[in-house]
Amino acid sequence: MAETSAPIPHVEDWRDDEGELKTELVRAVSDAVEAGDAVRLKDLVGEAHEADMGDLIAQLSSDERTRLVELLGADFDFNALIEVDDAIRVEILEDLSPEQVAEGVADLDSDDAVALLEDLTEEDRTEILDKLTPIDRVALKRAFDYPDDSAGRRMKDDFIAVPPFWTVGQVIDHLREADDLPEDFTEIFVVDPGYHLQGHIRLDRILRTKRGVPVTEVMEEDVRTVEAGEDQHDVALMFERYNLLSAAVVDDAGRLVGVLTVDDIVDVIEEEADAEIKALGGVKADEEISDSVWTTAKGRFGWLFINLITAFVASTVLKSFEVELEKMVALAVLAPIVASQGGNAATQTMTVAVRALATHELGPHNALRIIIREVMAGFINGLAFAVITGLIAGFWFGIADLGLVIGLAMICNLVAGAMGGILIPLALDRLNADPAVSSGPFVTTVTDVTGFLAFLGIATWWFKI
Amino acid sequence: MAETSAPIPHVEDWRDDEGELKTELVRAVSDAVEAGDAVRLKDLVGEAHEADMGDLIAQLSSDERTRLVELLGADFDFNALIEVDDAIRVEILEDLSPEQVAEGVADLDSDDAVALLEDLTEEDRTEILDKLTPIDRVALKRAFDYPDDSAGRRMKDDFIAVPPFWTVGQVIDHLREADDLPEDFTEIFVVDPGYHLQGHIRLDRILRTKRGVPVTEVMEEDVRTVEAGEDQHDVALMFERYNLLSAAVVDDAGRLVGVLTVDDIVDVIEEEADAEIKALGGVKADEEISDSVWTTAKGRFGWLFINLITAFVASTVLKSFEVELEKMVALAVLAPIVASQGGNAATQTMTVAVRALATHELGPHNALRIIIREVMAGFINGLAFAVITGLIAGFWFGIADLGLVIGLAMICNLVAGAMGGILIPLALDRLNADPAVSSGPFVTTVTDVTGFLAFLGIATWWFKI
Repeated sequence: MAETSAPIPHVEDWRDDEGELKTELVRAVSDAVEAGDAVRLKDLVGEAHEADMGDLIAQLSSDERTRLVELLGADFDFNALIEVDDAIRVEILEDLSPEQVAEGVADLDSDDAVALLEDLTEEDRTEILDKLTPIDRVALKRAFDYPDDSAGRRMKDDFIAVPPFWTVGQVIDHLREADDLPEDFTEIFVVDPGYHLQGHIRLDRILRTKRGVPVTEVMEEDVRTVEAGEDQHDVALMFERYNLLSAAVVDDAGRLVGVLTVDDIVDVIEEEADAEIKALGGVKADEEISDSVWTTAKGRFGWLFINLITAFVASTVLKSFEVELEKMVALAVLAPIVASQGGNAATQTMTVAVRALATHELGPHNALRIIIREVMAGFINGLAFAVITGLIAGFWFGIADLGLVIGLAMICNLVAGAMGGILIPLALDRLNADPAVSSGPFVTTVTDVTGFLAFLGIATWWFKI
Repeated sequence: MAETSAPIPHVEDWRDDEGELKTELVRAVSDAVEAGDAVRLKDLVGEAHEADMGDLIAQLSSDERTRLVELLGADFDFNALIEVDDAIRVEILEDLSPEQVAEGVADLDSDDAVALLEDLTEEDRTEILDKLTPIDRVALKRAFDYPDDSAGRRMKDDFIAVPPFWTVGQVIDHLREADDLPEDFTEIFVVDPGYHLQGHIRLDRILRTKRGVPVTEVMEEDVRTVEAGEDQHDVALMFERYNLLSAAVVDDAGRLVGVLTVDDIVDVIEEEADAEIKALGGVKADEEISDSVWTTAKGRFGWLFINLITAFVASTVLKSFEVELEKMVALAVLAPIVASQGGNAATQTMTVAVRALATHELGPHNALRIIIREVMAGFINGLAFAVITGLIAGFWFGIADLGLVIGLAMICNLVAGAMGGILIPLALDRLNADPAVSSGPFVTTVTDVTGFLAFLGIATWWFKI
């Protein structure tokens, strides 16, 4: 009793109030690694959760990381490597010997082993797989046969399946006696001899049922299943929609091959949100905070290049009004305001459209209503900013008509921005392109060109330049 | 046996291949509601999952929604209303009588009841709470005493706690006999008489342990706990970091008051990603696809207004070079290219910085390294685009020196953009402002002003205008 009434150890001892790893800890670990002091190192990090360990590894230098893994030896939990950035993980795995990695992989769940080895080259991966036991090797090779980002890659192949003629009591006895059960599980599957799914039973149902009851009486037949080849994006949407804790994964022949749990899906949701945010900001989904200067610069060049082209396209519009700009330089001063305001309004619409497409809230059934709403909202804000911008511009340059001209151009451009902001993502989605990645440059081109054209065109006509 | 070998009913019958609700279904439901045909309606939607039902409700007209709830009467599962947009939910709840809502609320878990009533006015909510049984009322009022978006609002107050002197057998008997247990649960808490947490036991451990073993021997003492007042953002980070399925919620005095499960956290993660994406795109977090034109336009006005001010600030730079622009109109044509390219590079940096701050990957320990990386990446791409833009501009206007000038300006602006893109989010974060919401306009001002100033300044000096 003395032991159990002791205070529960505070698991957050490693972190300060902001949730950052404490500097003293990082320094102490780094010193122990430099000194090659395995005993001290085990003292420091022995009890660490894999996630804390991952964060710690990320903060060490390249050399220290590999030495830490080597010093900890069999005490090192390879799960920690799943928590670090891809670039760091690959670097450490390449530095270690294939034997060391294989030993670490042998302790992992199948889904974690896949996550660990996924970003290695085919060659490095095969070298490691060849060091595993035949059973582990075949299981992992099968997982790697499924496409990237599919349910088959994310699932655990370790689950409990019982035949439909068992009773609850037989299930409980099996659980008490079998010693090759998965680490933790929240449900049991009922399958026929061909491993076709008959139903599933949640553990609380088993605990609350008398031993003599047949499993077929307590099982739910209505199991959410996922095909192993299905994309993780669709699987995540299903988990979110139906608040699932787990789903059964079946192969082409409908046989149960694995189970997906919500903690894997949390990672997928995080990954997808990250990819969407980065795409909208013109950054590649795989850019990581640990990337080198060169990788970073190279990765961002492409999007900037496309935007440079759109900027030149917009400038050809300005150039075609060279004579007018020369005669009335106020136009050159004000034109970027019209373009920028349209661009910002269009970005708002595009953001909403991209989000709604990603969550399936925007589809054929309501597209027309949303297009109309956006265009009308664009028109209303166009009117509002026509008045505001018109007044400021008119007074600033002491030319009342200039206010009128910029106001009209503002309305045109905010309506054009709204149309571009919604129609371009819809069109890209229809063409099976990712609207988060590709919409931006098109939308900006629309508002830059429309902004310059409307403002300078109306000005030329009004002032008879 | 005949029943159990029947094929598992396909739960996705309502949806087409794209995951959209089938149009025929929506039309049939709408017709049944219009005709007031409760029998047909129950036939159509009787077995529906709350999430499908929520999507269906969203697609009906305002009048049809309330009529559907009324026609289904006691068969309507109020969980479906949690799945729809806030605006739709509030509208339906306001249309129904407080008695009807109270009846529906009585069937819900505490966390779902909170989610349902959260967006109502204080007055409407009190009216509904007053119709509940005293026990339900007190429990819900307590939840509403916790701040918005806190763990106390999201937790279930329904959990299983057992004393430390019980055996596993006693726990199993309790689960078999008690009839006021939560619907589903995956763990059991061990508490002292003052409800202080001693440990927790996962159900699989109970199933695998002999009846005579004391719970203190199978429980894990290392329970992740959350304070009821803690913000859901921090809680979600903890769930993600440690791959938790659930966490115990304790009050100020350390007493167990509820449990948070990962399915609630999935919603929080989704909500937060949504808010971050919208913030970066200049859209309010609470904007919904079902908002009216007027609400949409009004909600977006503020951000556009701030951006208008920044656009005028940038234009004052252009205006201060009026004489030069008049003498050399090519400058007016090319200046927006410099500003836009800097703005896009800065957006990339800002996106990465905002993301890394949200995930706690960027903190005091690596800020300097990331600032240096960004500035160097900005310099490298600045050089690259200096050459590209310089060549194009030089040939386009037939003035080689113009290429040199725009190239130098491009380098300045991409470096300035990188600095603004990283330093502004870092500063806002330090000031406890949300960098996703506020960074954009500041960053754009930096690149617009620097772009115009660098390009026109260097041009004035070089060409001695």
